[in-house]
Amino acid sequence: MSEIEKPKGHALSKDKVLTNGGNNVSSNPSDEMTEKFDLATVYVSDAQYNRNIFFDTSPQAVRLYLLYNHWFMQTLVYTFIIVNLALALFEDPAVVPLPIWATSTIEIICLSAFSVRMVHYAKVIPKDKFWKDPKNICIIVVVTLSFIDLTIYGALKSTGYFAIRWSRVFRPLLLVNVTEGRQLRRAFRSIRNALPQISYVFLLFMFSVLVFSLVALKLFGKRGLLTIDGSPYFTDYLDIVFDLYVLVTTANSPDVMMPAYNYSVFFTIFFILYIVINTYTFMSFFLAVVYSNYKKHLKEEVRQLVKSRRFKMCRAFSLLQEARGEGGEPVVTQAKWNHLVKLVKPNISISHRELLWSVLDDQNKGHIGKFAFVQLADLLSIQVITVKSQPHPIQICFPSMYNSPVSRFIRYVVHQRHSLFFFYYKAENPVVSNAEWGFLALYMLEIILKLYATDPRAFFARHHFWNWFDTIIIVSALFGTIINSALKHSGGYTSRQILDIIFILRVLRLIRLVDSIKRFRAIINILIKIGPTILIFGQLIVVVYYIFAMVGMELFKGKVQFFEPNSTSPDQEYCGNPLLKGTTFAKLNYCKNNFNNVVSSFIVLLELTVVNQCGFTAVTHISARIFFVLFHIVVVIIIINIFVAFILEAFLVEYTIDKSDLQTSLEKKIEELELNVQQDGVDTGLVDAMESNDNELGPSEAGKQKPSLMFKIASRRSRTVDGLLQRMFETDIRPEDFNEEEEPENINFSNPVFDSV
Amino acid sequence: MSEIEKPKGHALSKDKVLTNGGNNVSSNPSDEMTEKFDLATVYVSDAQYNRNIFFDTSPQAVRLYLLYNHWFMQTLVYTFIIVNLALALFEDPAVVPLPIWATSTIEIICLSAFSVRMVHYAKVIPKDKFWKDPKNICIIVVVTLSFIDLTIYGALKSTGYFAIRWSRVFRPLLLVNVTEGRQLRRAFRSIRNALPQISYVFLLFMFSVLVFSLVALKLFGKRGLLTIDGSPYFTDYLDIVFDLYVLVTTANSPDVMMPAYNYSVFFTIFFILYIVINTYTFMSFFLAVVYSNYKKHLKEEVRQLVKSRRFKMCRAFSLLQEARGEGGEPVVTQAKWNHLVKLVKPNISISHRELLWSVLDDQNKGHIGKFAFVQLADLLSIQVITVKSQPHPIQICFPSMYNSPVSRFIRYVVHQRHSLFFFYYKAENPVVSNAEWGFLALYMLEIILKLYATDPRAFFARHHFWNWFDTIIIVSALFGTIINSALKHSGGYTSRQILDIIFILRVLRLIRLVDSIKRFRAIINILIKIGPTILIFGQLIVVVYYIFAMVGMELFKGKVQFFEPNSTSPDQEYCGNPLLKGTTFAKLNYCKNNFNNVVSSFIVLLELTVVNQCGFTAVTHISARIFFVLFHIVVVIIIINIFVAFILEAFLVEYTIDKSDLQTSLEKKIEELELNVQQDGVDTGLVDAMESNDNELGPSEAGKQKPSLMFKIASRRSRTVDGLLQRMFETDIRPEDFNEEEEPENINFSNPVFDSV
Repeated sequence: MSEIEKPKGHALSKDKVLTNGGNNVSSNPSDEMTEKFDLATVYVSDAQYNRNIFFDTSPQAVRLYLLYNHWFMQTLVYTFIIVNLALALFEDPAVVPLPIWATSTIEIICLSAFSVRMVHYAKVIPKDKFWKDPKNICIIVVVTLSFIDLTIYGALKSTGYFAIRWSRVFRPLLLVNVTEGRQLRRAFRSIRNALPQISYVFLLFMFSVLVFSLVALKLFGKRGLLTIDGSPYFTDYLDIVFDLYVLVTTANSPDVMMPAYNYSVFFTIFFILYIVINTYTFMSFFLAVVYSNYKKHLKEEVRQLVKSRRFKMCRAFSLLQEARGEGGEPVVTQAKWNHLVKLVKPNISISHRELLWSVLDDQNKGHIGKFAFVQLADLLSIQVITVKSQPHPIQICFPSMYNSPVSRFIRYVVHQRHSLFFFYYKAENPVVSNAEWGFLALYMLEIILKLYATDPRAFFARHHFWNWFDTIIIVSALFGTIINSALKHSGGYTSRQILDIIFILRVLRLIRLVDSIKRFRAIINILIKIGPTILIFGQLIVVVYYIFAMVGMELFKGKVQFFEPNSTSPDQEYCGNPLLKGTTFAKLNYCKNNFNNVVSSFIVLLELTVVNQCGFTAVTHISARIFFVLFHIVVVIIIINIFVAFILEAFLVEYTIDKSDLQTSLEKKIEELELNVQQDGVDTGLVDAMESNDNELGPSEAGKQKPSLMFKIASRRSRTVDGLLQRMFETDIRPEDFNEEEEPENINFSNPVFDSV
Repeated sequence: MSEIEKPKGHALSKDKVLTNGGNNVSSNPSDEMTEKFDLATVYVSDAQYNRNIFFDTSPQAVRLYLLYNHWFMQTLVYTFIIVNLALALFEDPAVVPLPIWATSTIEIICLSAFSVRMVHYAKVIPKDKFWKDPKNICIIVVVTLSFIDLTIYGALKSTGYFAIRWSRVFRPLLLVNVTEGRQLRRAFRSIRNALPQISYVFLLFMFSVLVFSLVALKLFGKRGLLTIDGSPYFTDYLDIVFDLYVLVTTANSPDVMMPAYNYSVFFTIFFILYIVINTYTFMSFFLAVVYSNYKKHLKEEVRQLVKSRRFKMCRAFSLLQEARGEGGEPVVTQAKWNHLVKLVKPNISISHRELLWSVLDDQNKGHIGKFAFVQLADLLSIQVITVKSQPHPIQICFPSMYNSPVSRFIRYVVHQRHSLFFFYYKAENPVVSNAEWGFLALYMLEIILKLYATDPRAFFARHHFWNWFDTIIIVSALFGTIINSALKHSGGYTSRQILDIIFILRVLRLIRLVDSIKRFRAIINILIKIGPTILIFGQLIVVVYYIFAMVGMELFKGKVQFFEPNSTSPDQEYCGNPLLKGTTFAKLNYCKNNFNNVVSSFIVLLELTVVNQCGFTAVTHISARIFFVLFHIVVVIIIINIFVAFILEAFLVEYTIDKSDLQTSLEKKIEELELNVQQDGVDTGLVDAMESNDNELGPSEAGKQKPSLMFKIASRRSRTVDGLLQRMFETDIRPEDFNEEEEPENINFSNPVFDSV
């Protein structure tokens, strides 16, 4: 790509930095130009948000496409998906029973919405692409099946027959296959790619379990041992296989071993071998397989992402290019670039935009080549905070008072300490109500003092998480205490809920204390960064749980009854099911762990994730164990391991990779222009300042002895998931991708999709 | 190190390969020469086995040092260590009680042996080095303390006072600090290096647990909820902290949550948050921290190992060097090299030695430079199997019969199939005794046929693991069946033990079936390779378990009694301790899980490793919980995670790194000389051949149309732990280490030691 590289050795004057450039494109360009800009905007924002949709490039389709990607439409779609999933709360077996006509109507509305969205999507992308995409097929099939199921169910129910809403199992597939579910699909692809290797290890593991079971049958079967329940110990092969499988989940340790151990110490050797080989070694193997696949696969995915991002940027470039460079090379002028950036990010400040330009056009030529242009998408995703040093409002109104020595001293003290009254906290007795008022007053005073010392607009800037955190917590606590006190005075009644909330809010403030210790901050940073991805895993878990909950409800609903603690029913002893009489399940009062509605199903599944307790097998056929083993394989062996693999990788990346090249060059440029804000400099009064997005101050104000406009790259905390993922393998993929000439069509515009389960 | 590199471009004749070289050094060199060779031998074997002992180089010390490293002395030391540790079986509380005088006498013998070993060591290494080494100090302190404790204990016991053998806790430290415990010390160093980071994560984790406990106290404390035992639920802060800590180990899930869940579904949100944050995220963090530290640290360790290995080889080189090369460069002649190799590895075959020489001296100059010489240690650690094609003994005696068409067909069929009667196995009914005989006869026939088709010496070659495996299993089964049948006929009595052993042996044969499937073989390879390191972790576990068992026995001995199942004692109900009346511990009949002797202590600790059941806290003070929490931190959070980290790394290495450079060059040389054996070529009759170590056949026999001597690099299965570890980071450390000139004294001869705990 040598023709794209900017020619070097042209020492242009450096003093042109941060000027507006030649305004040679009118603000109302021709219609054709508008369309080109529209299309370029779509390409750039697709590149920025990693959207991989092969849309029609006709002006009409582009406008439809812009509408399709509008945040309101996306929110609407997710709302309908959530409503559709939440229907399980109201359908039989329901938490809050609603009549069939009501749930059916809601479901029909949701399904219609999905259909409309599909039609919209079909208008945006070419017909052949639409039908080749398994995502669309999957949604259409799910919607159709739901309609069919709904009709059959309605017909059967109205005529009094037995009917099952089987299509509910497919509902979570909508969450996966919707256009916006990119990251969820990526997680599923991770799993799918690891599956062959996992299955080999799993087969070997099962072989080992089967061999051990055979040995166990031989060793223990004929000794007439009894379990604690009095049933024969290790006499049935399938039972042994199941028991030993459960031992891998550690759920029945040491119970499964006790009868043999009581008989002879030497039998423990069998269990020790089993635990070392299966519980520890094989389970580590699963993690290792998942981790190595995750790593390998992620690298490939990110490579694809970067490739397609670059391809889209090249497309945008070719729309706006002019043959203006030395030797007639295509370039994009600053004016066009400015217009494009304004369209892509309407609320970007001029100064921020010009900073970005000066990074790209570092030789002040007034135009940039393809190589520099392509970096725009990456540059836009680096969060830059524009900092303005403004006088405090009080300083403007009462300058002499604000600058008096007393006032200065107060401000100095406030700046010195993060929280003035923090350590009183611990001595506080949560019962004393008068002290409560005192402390609340102190906290309020603290906030007011801080607002006095710092500009309120800066104090509540968007990136000042802890200021928001503190203020919200203290104000909520204040309101809570006031409401509670009012309730008490009016009726002598104290609301426990409000007190609890106040207390929890106050305890949460402790987190800030920990964050102020440097060693812990690094770990909390990782935690915060992992946060968004945990949400993706949350969706993954919801999809899997939902499917298992639907199946589980059909299998086990009503088999176990929960009685309120003050109930006097004799059935309470055995959870309303005589089959449970005398089982540990009933003895430990697990009656509420049932599949009687979707909420309790989810809770049971969570418990099964933590420890695989399978008391349910007592209430149905023994083959219901398959349900529990399957759940263990899917959730514990696969999903939890993917989660651990993600955390492992995130942790290693955090310690090895620091900043991207672009981020470094942006920072260097900021430093070069002497516009940098000292990072976390508590000593300077400049730290707390406000981000101004709509500020249209020209750059002329900057560059004095103390510039009033400064930049700061947002802390590493505010990275997105995609960003983190790309960062993970950025160093690996950079060189080869820059040497490669992008070829349209065959690279990655075939969406990597999630095949229907 | 350019002066070390061999000058290139000298096209010497290639036909000198595999000749003996000029014998210009007499086989009885002068005394001075002998001493030099002795010293060089020590250096080379130290390099080969990664010994890092700074020994005295005086001839006498060298001879003492050779004795010190003799396998018999090392075996003796380990025997004494095992005896010393095993004393716990016979000391109060004992499995097999022995009088105090007996155990004391044995212990005094052991301690004396350690003292003698120390004195020996002190004579080998310089005085100042001896006293600077914490290993030695630690052993001396432990031995001294043991003597003191023994005296005090004997005196107190003989006068009838209460006494504790407190020095027993230190016994496992001998295992760690003994000279040969290199790999164990490395594992401990791994842990020590990860400790600071683990502790930060642990503090944050504990902070999180404490905050959650505070919230739990507020949420649940005043609602008057009851646990299943009828005790108040979540009212005491420390109890909550402990319960929530145990929830992290998943031991008390879902019991700990049930009272709150029964009260309100919304309280499960608290537990879900807790499980996601603490049980999953923080536990993954521990793994991530341990893994990243393990990786980082291991790299540094291996770098040090390679450096010191190279330094030792340079020392050996400088002892044997002559200024013979072009430009007066120091070189070592082939004769000297041959003598050295014979001393280092007395049982190496001439052909193997000459193969190694031809790899090093690939230009046939008759001497090698420093660069090539240094590689000897690595070259010696690559296992090369010398293969000789010999006629079958039957072929020699009855050539016409053996070469008849029928015989050829039988041999062909036998070679085609791994096991002829394998699949009959499954149809076999283990009860039918006649069929048993039939099958045994078939298996025997199979082995005999195989011995007919293949040279017996080749069939039982050392690297033919599966042949040994099969034969041992079938012959044992045959003997077992014969003995059992004899017993039955003589007294009508069937020994269950023998039948069981026969059965297990037969089941083990199934493993061979799995190994024949390629996909599984890769996984089994990793398992086998991990094997030796699991032994290191086994030692680590023994050290930690032993210490905890000693402390646990003092704390809990006799608190819980186990009654034989047929006992009629009324105390059986509550394990002989009224405090346990009605507890789950007694109900589930965990009475045998006690600290009444060292064996049951180890079993309890194993159970605690799998799931942290802490029923013991009922029988002593509540502070005994500290014991269990400490155990969980040390074993589960640290040691198990190191184990998982090792498996992760081993797995990733297995998939990424294939062969070392040296191995490749050795293989290339073998191929060049057309002496390579086709790997796993089942079709050729040459596969099964014998390793000849003492074969003194000259190279003149080789090189005909079908060479009778061939080489094969031992399969990847037979790697040592050190080899695997070095392989892990070999690619990373190679370049810089080759550019570095070794400096004596300050590199690594300061033994990396395990500081006393």
